[in-house]
Amino acid sequence: MQEVPLPEVYQLLEPGPVVLLTTTDRGRANVMTMSWHMMVEFTPPLIACVVSEGDYSFQALRKHRECVIAIPAVELAEKVVAVGNTHGRDTDKFAAIGLTPVPASKVAPPLVQECFANLECRVIDTRLVNRFNLFVLEVVAAWRDPKQKAPRTIHHRGYGRFTVDGETITLASKMP
Amino acid sequence: MQEVPLPEVYQLLEPGPVVLLTTTDRGRANVMTMSWHMMVEFTPPLIACVVSEGDYSFQALRKHRECVIAIPAVELAEKVVAVGNTHGRDTDKFAAIGLTPVPASKVAPPLVQECFANLECRVIDTRLVNRFNLFVLEVVAAWRDPKQKAPRTIHHRGYGRFTVDGETITLASKMP
Repeated sequence: MQEVPLPEVYQLLEPGPVVLLTTTDRGRANVMTMSWHMMVEFTPPLIACVVSEGDYSFQALRKHRECVIAIPAVELAEKVVAVGNTHGRDTDKFAAIGLTPVPASKVAPPLVQECFANLECRVIDTRLVNRFNLFVLEVVAAWRDPKQKAPRTIHHRGYGRFTVDGETITLASKMP
Repeated sequence: MQEVPLPEVYQLLEPGPVVLLTTTDRGRANVMTMSWHMMVEFTPPLIACVVSEGDYSFQALRKHRECVIAIPAVELAEKVVAVGNTHGRDTDKFAAIGLTPVPASKVAPPLVQECFANLECRVIDTRLVNRFNLFVLEVVAAWRDPKQKAPRTIHHRGYGRFTVDGETITLASKMP
């Protein structure tokens, strides 16, 4: 994997793709699907996300304050849905679904080898966790798979309906 | 416009489209573009968003605690970028760019007639405004233009590059 400069990380998440989120607790890694996330700052890259109390990952994230956000291309859509349909308490989802955990550089939770990008994150603010399950994360390292040249991401519209990335248009914007 | 049931609102924002945000201050409406938003809760629908202190809309949103999130289809892309390229202090962006403000039902800021969906919002949590410019909103009314049947949204990848919605795929998901 190639390192992504941290000031470019927002370009990966700002379009709103479905992502995977990995955590580790008691030496065991888990993975969930997540669509409720947004950028909060460019540099250092900050991300907000909502991880429901009902998700097995919630306790691990709150306790260890580390996670990896992995971004899958459309070719992984069936595995992404399988991750969402399976409960981490009972199952090693990586083995059961066929995803490969890879050690990260700065956090305990693993990268997901099959994803085209992986963001290593630490929790930096928990003030909105009790009311909203909302965590603020800082990206401390970011990676990209150079073999996946033009990945098309998926965007969840509810109940298993996903929009796949279509064409790209470029307009003269003053915004980063 | 047709009313959207509030429990269905998340389906409009979860895919991560670029949106417009309207505010009102001293009897004058303003509009900005925004990509940093996410769903926080299904029902009542809660949204988090980041409005930079540097944006003219920031003070209006903090002071009056109301806004409208309007979702444009790709046909409005040039106007969306023009909104982002113009500063609201100097210009009536609606008139200059050719967008039509329409009175909302429960908040002072206007709907945007040309957008296929409009969400009337009130600010319900400001604890992360000082550190992150992050507002939590509750959607109190939502509208959809029935004439725009299958709108394709745009997703910002940085510096005026947008991905347009492509095909839709449906998988057997247990998730809402």
